[in-house]
Amino acid sequence: MIIGCGAASISAAIAARKTDPDAEITMISRDHYTAYARCGLPFALAKEVPSFEALVDFPMDFYEQMGFNLKPESTVTDVDAKQKRIEFESKKGKETLTYDALIMATGADPIFPPIKGSEKKGIFKLRTIDDGKAIDQAVSKSKKALVVGAGLIGLEVADALVRRGLKVTVVELLPQAVRPLLDEDFAEMVHKRVTERGVRLILNHAADEFLGGDKVEAVLVGGEKIPTDFVVMTIGVRSNTALAQKIGAELGVTKCIRVNSRMETTVKDVYACGDCVESRHLVTGLPSVSQLGTTANRQGKVAGVNAAGGYSVFPGVLSTSVTKFFDMEIGYSGLTEWQAKLAGIEPIVSSVSWKTRAHYHPEVKDMEVKMLFDPDLGVVIGGQIIAGESVAMRINLLSVAISNRMTAFELAKIDAGYAPPLNDAVEPIAMAAESAVKSLKAT
Amino acid sequence: MIIGCGAASISAAIAARKTDPDAEITMISRDHYTAYARCGLPFALAKEVPSFEALVDFPMDFYEQMGFNLKPESTVTDVDAKQKRIEFESKKGKETLTYDALIMATGADPIFPPIKGSEKKGIFKLRTIDDGKAIDQAVSKSKKALVVGAGLIGLEVADALVRRGLKVTVVELLPQAVRPLLDEDFAEMVHKRVTERGVRLILNHAADEFLGGDKVEAVLVGGEKIPTDFVVMTIGVRSNTALAQKIGAELGVTKCIRVNSRMETTVKDVYACGDCVESRHLVTGLPSVSQLGTTANRQGKVAGVNAAGGYSVFPGVLSTSVTKFFDMEIGYSGLTEWQAKLAGIEPIVSSVSWKTRAHYHPEVKDMEVKMLFDPDLGVVIGGQIIAGESVAMRINLLSVAISNRMTAFELAKIDAGYAPPLNDAVEPIAMAAESAVKSLKAT
Repeated sequence: MIIGCGAASISAAIAARKTDPDAEITMISRDHYTAYARCGLPFALAKEVPSFEALVDFPMDFYEQMGFNLKPESTVTDVDAKQKRIEFESKKGKETLTYDALIMATGADPIFPPIKGSEKKGIFKLRTIDDGKAIDQAVSKSKKALVVGAGLIGLEVADALVRRGLKVTVVELLPQAVRPLLDEDFAEMVHKRVTERGVRLILNHAADEFLGGDKVEAVLVGGEKIPTDFVVMTIGVRSNTALAQKIGAELGVTKCIRVNSRMETTVKDVYACGDCVESRHLVTGLPSVSQLGTTANRQGKVAGVNAAGGYSVFPGVLSTSVTKFFDMEIGYSGLTEWQAKLAGIEPIVSSVSWKTRAHYHPEVKDMEVKMLFDPDLGVVIGGQIIAGESVAMRINLLSVAISNRMTAFELAKIDAGYAPPLNDAVEPIAMAAESAVKSLKAT
Repeated sequence: MIIGCGAASISAAIAARKTDPDAEITMISRDHYTAYARCGLPFALAKEVPSFEALVDFPMDFYEQMGFNLKPESTVTDVDAKQKRIEFESKKGKETLTYDALIMATGADPIFPPIKGSEKKGIFKLRTIDDGKAIDQAVSKSKKALVVGAGLIGLEVADALVRRGLKVTVVELLPQAVRPLLDEDFAEMVHKRVTERGVRLILNHAADEFLGGDKVEAVLVGGEKIPTDFVVMTIGVRSNTALAQKIGAELGVTKCIRVNSRMETTVKDVYACGDCVESRHLVTGLPSVSQLGTTANRQGKVAGVNAAGGYSVFPGVLSTSVTKFFDMEIGYSGLTEWQAKLAGIEPIVSSVSWKTRAHYHPEVKDMEVKMLFDPDLGVVIGGQIIAGESVAMRINLLSVAISNRMTAFELAKIDAGYAPPLNDAVEPIAMAAESAVKSLKAT
């Protein structure tokens, strides 16, 4: 029995099916769409992806072929973990089913702080295809928009709206954009680019009030009334843990569901995975929140195997992330400088400004690489990359290096391939590592 | 004292300078150009890079600033390793210099087999800027060309000539293209693409004779006279070891100069690096030839540090390679299947056909990934990737995984980041590893 139909759920269902060809697998979904690529929503909004429907990963007949009993538009109303029984409600009324193993992939919902005027029309979130379509409709009738929150999704949305021809304002409470992924120095490059592209970026401010009549017409920010045709709230998400708490499953210090490495909750035969759980950070060993589609996929697979009677473990997270907005690619893995310091590590920081291709290639673009090393162990613990291209696989290389606890000495000597149209003969990751070696020797 | 002015030499010179700010550093170069990016020659020929001169990495004043005493257009005529004396000849006549440490970065020269008619005009190699310019001149007066050798450079040249509007024939003695990097199944994809782009690819055949008058007019291949306006020979290169042999430095089984991990030859105070040396393969531990610019850079650095009195070691090679031709990117690291078998390893092979971006992204391209695992140790020992994009950094990730001796189990669980316009949520390297895990469990 799987609650949810997102990345974690679908990965769990497929893994369970592979583990036990005869298992009865039921998926209970709030949405009327079958599982879709949530990360693609801003790109569909930008019209870079042809339609929101294109994001649907598997058609209905996939569920039939796989023997997944999908219950769409259904809300779980009760779970009895002693009787191993679940109750849910759909248009057809209430239904009760029993389970041998339960997987909670209840996900997370957008945070919506209690701002005055929040009840007005024209204030959107972007979490579902329906959300995306609602914003899309608003775009076609609008000239200006305001985005609250300058995280990854906020800036992906801002980029989409700019590409759709709108005048965009972004309001961020923190002193920098994309705080979970970037240190101030790297965020500065984002601020510069976003501003160059015509976005008004307001840092250190909240949206204090939504103004207007029935529909939002302006947002009060630090005493200024900023006129807007609509608002998109992208402050972040909060784990859905109510059901888990109801059955007595423990939460961790992060207020997400506590699980062990087999994705078992503290309640017998109840697993959890995806945005609703607490993860262990691979560098610090500390509890960590990793609300990413990739983490959900990997955790879902482990939960599915175990729930179906197999054995699988989830090693932990580096929360490797990457995206593209305003023609810049941004990648992150492991720890930022501020995260390292929060964990008590005073890292050796090594930054390199380099090029994405041979310097003489006409399409060469700039690249900034920042790497963090543990000063006592000499191992790489984190990295940030901003470049015009080739960030995704480079940050994944760094992720592999971090999980292998590679030292700066080793990273300085990697056997990297090169071709003038694809990258430079000198790999900036190796170069940054080499410079860290000097710092290590000097400590 | 450094003999040569290529990738290995310049890396050695820079490393020596960093190690000893006061060292007297002399570089003796056959070429009249200062060090340039040899790997860029086919791309300059294609006009993708604006000019051959653009490939020159450092202007003359860089040598002055760094205190490198460059002797251009000079040929070393004698080395006395006992007296630590070197004799060379230039337009200015003969000169003799003494050294404390000698670095032989004598490189490799194109192989030119004794084919009848080789003395005719219009038969080129592509090793130097002058070679490139000579071909470039021939292109502007020609309609058809024939390339002998379907290795990386041969196909890069073929692509360049096709882009310049020529009708191109490629003749290869082996039954497949790019033998050092690809197994037959992957080479098959190259054959298909090259042929689709209008190249006539003749495998299993040599160029038997060059026909014509003063100038080549046709090539005899398997009894057929193939008319051509010029020929480019790209059969491969052979290490320049004559000077090393002259002073009694041992060669290895590969007929390249034997060195230890500090890049010392068997002659006291004589180092060697780059295309002229034998390397140790990181997977097999066996002698290996790795005639790549990247290997030369890394080895040169080690030789330079040691020659200047520092301490540095070269760990060995995976010969990670990547290139782009005919709009396909090709990458390789570690061992191919045939190389593994030659080393006595019967590998577990895992191949995946996947996509470079989210399946719904309009610019998504095909990707083929093949990975090899040691069946007894479970570790990854090699990989090949062919795709429309994003191969370079993915093969470098694989190189890092191989050098870390990562198991299939570990690789199946890497924390890879993802964004729909940049890659797919499921990383094909992890997927191929997962499938190898099944094979490992079944053995």
